[in-house]
Amino acid sequence: MNRTILSGCLQRTLWTGLVTLAWLGAPGWLAAQSIRDPKMPDKPLVLAAQGSFFVGGQKARQTRNELGNLGPEGNITVHQMYVRFMIPKGGERNPPVVMVHGATLTGKSWETTPDGRMGWDEYFVRKGHPVYVPDQVGRGRSGFNQAVFNNVRAGLAPPASQPGFLRFSDEIVWPNFRFGARPGEPYPETKFPVSAVDELSKQGVPDLTFGGGVPMPNPTLRALAELGRELRGAILMGHSQSGSFPLEAALLDPAAARGLVLVEPGRCPGNYNDEQIRKLAAIPILAVYGDYLDTSTGMSNDHFWKLSYDSCQALIQRINAAGGRAQMLYPPERGIRGNSYMIMQDTNNLQIADLILAWIRSVVMRPAGAPRRK
Amino acid sequence: MNRTILSGCLQRTLWTGLVTLAWLGAPGWLAAQSIRDPKMPDKPLVLAAQGSFFVGGQKARQTRNELGNLGPEGNITVHQMYVRFMIPKGGERNPPVVMVHGATLTGKSWETTPDGRMGWDEYFVRKGHPVYVPDQVGRGRSGFNQAVFNNVRAGLAPPASQPGFLRFSDEIVWPNFRFGARPGEPYPETKFPVSAVDELSKQGVPDLTFGGGVPMPNPTLRALAELGRELRGAILMGHSQSGSFPLEAALLDPAAARGLVLVEPGRCPGNYNDEQIRKLAAIPILAVYGDYLDTSTGMSNDHFWKLSYDSCQALIQRINAAGGRAQMLYPPERGIRGNSYMIMQDTNNLQIADLILAWIRSVVMRPAGAPRRK
Repeated sequence: MNRTILSGCLQRTLWTGLVTLAWLGAPGWLAAQSIRDPKMPDKPLVLAAQGSFFVGGQKARQTRNELGNLGPEGNITVHQMYVRFMIPKGGERNPPVVMVHGATLTGKSWETTPDGRMGWDEYFVRKGHPVYVPDQVGRGRSGFNQAVFNNVRAGLAPPASQPGFLRFSDEIVWPNFRFGARPGEPYPETKFPVSAVDELSKQGVPDLTFGGGVPMPNPTLRALAELGRELRGAILMGHSQSGSFPLEAALLDPAAARGLVLVEPGRCPGNYNDEQIRKLAAIPILAVYGDYLDTSTGMSNDHFWKLSYDSCQALIQRINAAGGRAQMLYPPERGIRGNSYMIMQDTNNLQIADLILAWIRSVVMRPAGAPRRK
Repeated sequence: MNRTILSGCLQRTLWTGLVTLAWLGAPGWLAAQSIRDPKMPDKPLVLAAQGSFFVGGQKARQTRNELGNLGPEGNITVHQMYVRFMIPKGGERNPPVVMVHGATLTGKSWETTPDGRMGWDEYFVRKGHPVYVPDQVGRGRSGFNQAVFNNVRAGLAPPASQPGFLRFSDEIVWPNFRFGARPGEPYPETKFPVSAVDELSKQGVPDLTFGGGVPMPNPTLRALAELGRELRGAILMGHSQSGSFPLEAALLDPAAARGLVLVEPGRCPGNYNDEQIRKLAAIPILAVYGDYLDTSTGMSNDHFWKLSYDSCQALIQRINAAGGRAQMLYPPERGIRGNSYMIMQDTNNLQIADLILAWIRSVVMRPAGAPRRK
């Protein structure tokens, strides 16, 4: 499987290499490595439908200055959530999966991997599930509210009133995403495709979620609850900063969730009351963590990921004590070593997906009255 | 054709209506109209491949403050261009089409229309062409350089040094996108689906291209040239603010372009020298404008679109005088009235696409030596 995805040019690897070298000669401009990397699948993808839409949003009245001075004052929409979907032919009635990305990232997280392999979005579709991939409110194609920035620029608001943007540096990603203890020094068994780490770097976008640029509660939670309900119950999957979003969306509207997959949550909440735990006990829940949890993040919060894992184990215990069906998927316990924080992009990403799909089949889609999976 | 795209719930229109009404009861939150609107196509979409990648980008060294204060100083990537693609089974060797969106918008422009019909991205794929849809550098999933904003916030840079963001208000869109002279008063023959104009509003994202937030020359031009070359020559399509980008990308690298489609360019450049005109004369070019060109935009620049059209007619004449193959597609001349600036989303969007596809067949894909189409 070494054909590239480029139409009309399936056997021109050498030629592409020469072109890439020519571009590389220009200072500072990065090679478009991934244009030639995406692999051609063996079988076509047959979709009943694909497309995109928005969920939610609110009208905001803004001044001429807030809008950028091209026209008079007026209304715009803010806090809407962009969603792209693919529905497999023949899988229209299977449980849909909603995949929400983490901090400083967009829905791109779930698409083609940095080294050009199939992402979870397509893989879950090929396994028969409709897949919905949002960009969180405030990032990517969902946009953000620019008013305060334009007001600060014009001297109409104090600089400190504008939200801060977060980006992870290429260097901090190595320990924090658990590729290796230091940049360029991967853990011996790492499953992240570290040769393509510069392609992951391109996935980063400014994130104002932590800097006050997204209202509290985060509109993405409500949008997820609404999306899940409209889908008549979806499998809600979050990652890292959105790792607990499936829990929150299910609490907003239990009808939104047929199952919850928490991939590497920054934390599982420890402050739910008994009523909330009772609600969550009615929904199948799977937490997923990669390897190397007890390593330094390279930031001030050392052992961050071990504490994350522990917080989810504690929540799982509470939910199951209330009669729930919550589980931890920790691949090292199954002899699978080396997975990273970006587990959906790791070289064994489809192996991990198969474990989640097996859980969907055996727990989420289990016929009523069938024995529970231990 | 009234089935919705929602998996497992194809005949629940009434139910969805009730849910929508319930959500509408919450103040300020917009109904997710388009969740239930997307229509199910009659035939499945069969893809040889789909996915996404980035083109270009540059490393930027940034301070702890510029990165948002979570970790130490380090490098990130800026000015990369996100591209999503779909390649039809059996169309792998047909000319690929690259569709670039306009100001304050993202690649979403070309996807599912505001009222839930098929976008040009899928339609061109169904007609046999690989389709590549970027987000311009500085917007959507391509991200932007956040450093100056964080520096202004921290008092390390003057407020006026940060770029301004542009958004079009819902009110200015009516005359400027030529739906009607005033908000809520569509032109009698308008082809824009004005009942879904609030869904178009959700497509808006802050645009810093005009406010100094994207370097000059715009990195999107170089990224398009690189993408087109890697595709061994693509049909480059731009819209409005990017309407002239295909020309610029082709001048950067003539091997990038097998054809250029300029949809509603803000202006066609009038300052090309003879050498540039000679280069453009070697490439099939099609400019496309909708109706109501000689109306007010509602902004200071009245008759803007008539001047735009005239500038492209002038360029077409210059190119053809140099032996070129440039044409204007102006639907009113063919008895098709009422098209808007968002012609790819109009109710007759597939009729317009068919005219462009006919041009691709007869001009771009014309066998060598075959007579030219008049």
